[in-house]
Amino acid sequence: MARLAGVSEATVSRVLNGVGPIKEQTRARVMEAAKALNYVPSALAQGFARKRSGNLGVILPLLPKVNLFSTHYFSELLSGIGATARRYGYDLLLLFREPDEPREYERLFQAQKIDACLILGAQDVEPERLALAELAAAGRQFCLVSQRFEGAGYNTVDADHREGTRAAVHHLLDRGYSRIWFLNGPSSYSNSADRLQGYQEAMLERGASFEPGHVLIGNYSRTSGYRLSAEIERRIRSGEADAIVAGSDRMAIGVLQGLKEKGLLAGRDYGLVGCDDSEGAKLTEPMLSSVAVPFYEMGCQAADQLLAPLAKGETSSSFQLKLPVELIARGSSGG
Amino acid sequence: MARLAGVSEATVSRVLNGVGPIKEQTRARVMEAAKALNYVPSALAQGFARKRSGNLGVILPLLPKVNLFSTHYFSELLSGIGATARRYGYDLLLLFREPDEPREYERLFQAQKIDACLILGAQDVEPERLALAELAAAGRQFCLVSQRFEGAGYNTVDADHREGTRAAVHHLLDRGYSRIWFLNGPSSYSNSADRLQGYQEAMLERGASFEPGHVLIGNYSRTSGYRLSAEIERRIRSGEADAIVAGSDRMAIGVLQGLKEKGLLAGRDYGLVGCDDSEGAKLTEPMLSSVAVPFYEMGCQAADQLLAPLAKGETSSSFQLKLPVELIARGSSGG
Repeated sequence: MARLAGVSEATVSRVLNGVGPIKEQTRARVMEAAKALNYVPSALAQGFARKRSGNLGVILPLLPKVNLFSTHYFSELLSGIGATARRYGYDLLLLFREPDEPREYERLFQAQKIDACLILGAQDVEPERLALAELAAAGRQFCLVSQRFEGAGYNTVDADHREGTRAAVHHLLDRGYSRIWFLNGPSSYSNSADRLQGYQEAMLERGASFEPGHVLIGNYSRTSGYRLSAEIERRIRSGEADAIVAGSDRMAIGVLQGLKEKGLLAGRDYGLVGCDDSEGAKLTEPMLSSVAVPFYEMGCQAADQLLAPLAKGETSSSFQLKLPVELIARGSSGG
Repeated sequence: MARLAGVSEATVSRVLNGVGPIKEQTRARVMEAAKALNYVPSALAQGFARKRSGNLGVILPLLPKVNLFSTHYFSELLSGIGATARRYGYDLLLLFREPDEPREYERLFQAQKIDACLILGAQDVEPERLALAELAAAGRQFCLVSQRFEGAGYNTVDADHREGTRAAVHHLLDRGYSRIWFLNGPSSYSNSADRLQGYQEAMLERGASFEPGHVLIGNYSRTSGYRLSAEIERRIRSGEADAIVAGSDRMAIGVLQGLKEKGLLAGRDYGLVGCDDSEGAKLTEPMLSSVAVPFYEMGCQAADQLLAPLAKGETSSSFQLKLPVELIARGSSGG
C-alpha cells in the first residue's frame, strides 16, 4: 500500500491509525490506495488492538431548556476544539452530562470511548471534584477549559477574567462613572469568582469603596439581566449606581434592553460594560462595551495541549494556561 | 447485577449496551451496581461483539475562518440533535469535513465508528451525491438535515423555506411595499433554491413581476450583506427597490447596518425581512422581521427518526419531513 500511495510504511500506519498531524493530501492518497486494495480498517478492531479510539472527548453540561451551542461561550470553544482535533485526525465525541447525574468521566476512558478529554462548564461542586480526582489518580489526559479548581493543579486553559473586570471598572472610572455595580454569574464557576475579584480590586485600587451589597447575581442569561433591570433602575434613579459591569454580554444586553424600556439609555444615563464581546455586542444600540475573551483560541490551545503529545505517543506535561483578555470600548460606556 | 440494582436482566443489558431510552435514575442504579461488582464494560469490546459503537455521527463542513457553532443554524440543530441522542443513550461523534476533501461517509460505517449519521450543510455537488449514493447502496441509516437532493428519495428533515420567503413577500406587499428585491445565499444549497422559488411565486401570485436581476447573491454572512448594502442603497435611492427579503438574518443585519450608516432606516425608508429568527433579530433597531425556522426541533426530529428504530433494533423506514416556518413581523418591515 505504501508503494501504491508513494509514501513510507510509517506514514501509511499513521494515516490508518488516525495519528496525526498528516497533510490532508497525503491522507487522501493513502486512503485511495487503501480503497484500491480494498483495505477496510475497523476503528474498533484497531482500537481494540492499540487500546485507542481516536476520539477526543468533550464533556458538556446539558442544561434543560438551554440550547447549549447557542451561547457564544460554548460555540466559540467548540469551534476551536473541533478545528484543532481535525488537524490531528481526531474526532470529537460530545458527552452531555445532565446536571444531577453521576459524573463517570473515568469510565469513559475505561470503556475506551475516548483517549483524552476536555471538560467544559465544570462547576466547583463535590461530585465534580471527586470525578476529576478519579481521572487524575488514573493518570488520564484531561483538561479543564475556562474553569479552575484552586490548589488541584489540574491541566487548565482559562482566560484572565479577573483582569477583564478590573479593566472594565478602570475604564468606567476613567469615563467619570463612580458608583459602579457588578452583575455577576453563579459563584460555583471560577470565572465568576475571578471577575468578582477583579471588580473588587479595581474599586479599591482607585479609592472607591467595595460594597458587597453592590454585587447582584444573575445566571449569565439575557433574561436574568432583564429581570434585574428593575432593581438596577431604582438604584440609578436613587443615585446609588451610575454604571454596571456585567459578567456576560447576555446579562448586559438584558439590562440594556430592560433599562431602555424604562427610559434609561446606556452611555447617556448610565455606563454599561459586558463580558465576552459576543456578536450581540455589536447589534445593540448603543453598541455594548465588552471584555473580549479569546474562547476560540482557548479551545484550540486546550485541544492542542492534549493531542500534540498523544500524536507523538507521549503523555502531555502539566499545563495551566491563562489567555489575555481585552476591553473593547463602545457606546454603552460613553466610549 | 440485576438483583443488586433491583431491575430486570433486560434493563441491565439495555443500560450496559447503551440502548435507550432508559430513565436516568434507572441507569444510575445499574451503573452503581456495575461499579459495586467492579464490572467495566469496554465500549470497544462490546461494539466489536455486537458491531455497534453507540455513536450517532454528525457530519459538518469545516469552513475556513468560520466558527461553525457560532452560526444560529448549526447551533440550534446541534443542540436538538445532542439533547435527543442523550435521551437514547447515544453519544455524538462530530466529523468535520473540509470543503475539498473526499467524502468517505461509508467508511465511517465500515470502520464501525458510527451506527447512523446525520449530514449537515450538505451541498448538491457531484462528490456529495456519490458519497450519499454509496451510503444508500450499503443500506446505511442516514439523514440529510436542511438539505434535499431532488429525486434521490433520501431521508431528510427540512423546513418549508419556500413558504417562508413566500410569506415574507406577501407580508411586505401587504405593508405597501411593491419593489421587493431578494438577497439569497449560494444556489448549491437547496434552502437557497427553495427560498428563491417562494420569492418568485409570491411576486407572481400578486401580479408583481419577477425580475431575475432583482436577486442578489451573498454567502449567508453578515459581512456579505453589509458589502451588498452599497448596491442596495443605489437601488433604493433610484426608486428601483423599496424592500429586501434576505435568506438569512445575518445577511439582513449586514444590510440593516450598512444602510443605516448611509442614512436609510429599515421600516422607515425601506422594508426588510430576514430568515432564521436568530437571537440577533431581537437586538437590532428596529428589530428585524424574520422567518422563524424550527432548527432545534429539526435536530430533535432527525435524531429521533434514526435512533428510535435503532434502539428497538429495527431499521428506520424512509422519511421526508418538512417542518413549518412562521413569519415574525417586527419594526424592520414597518410591522
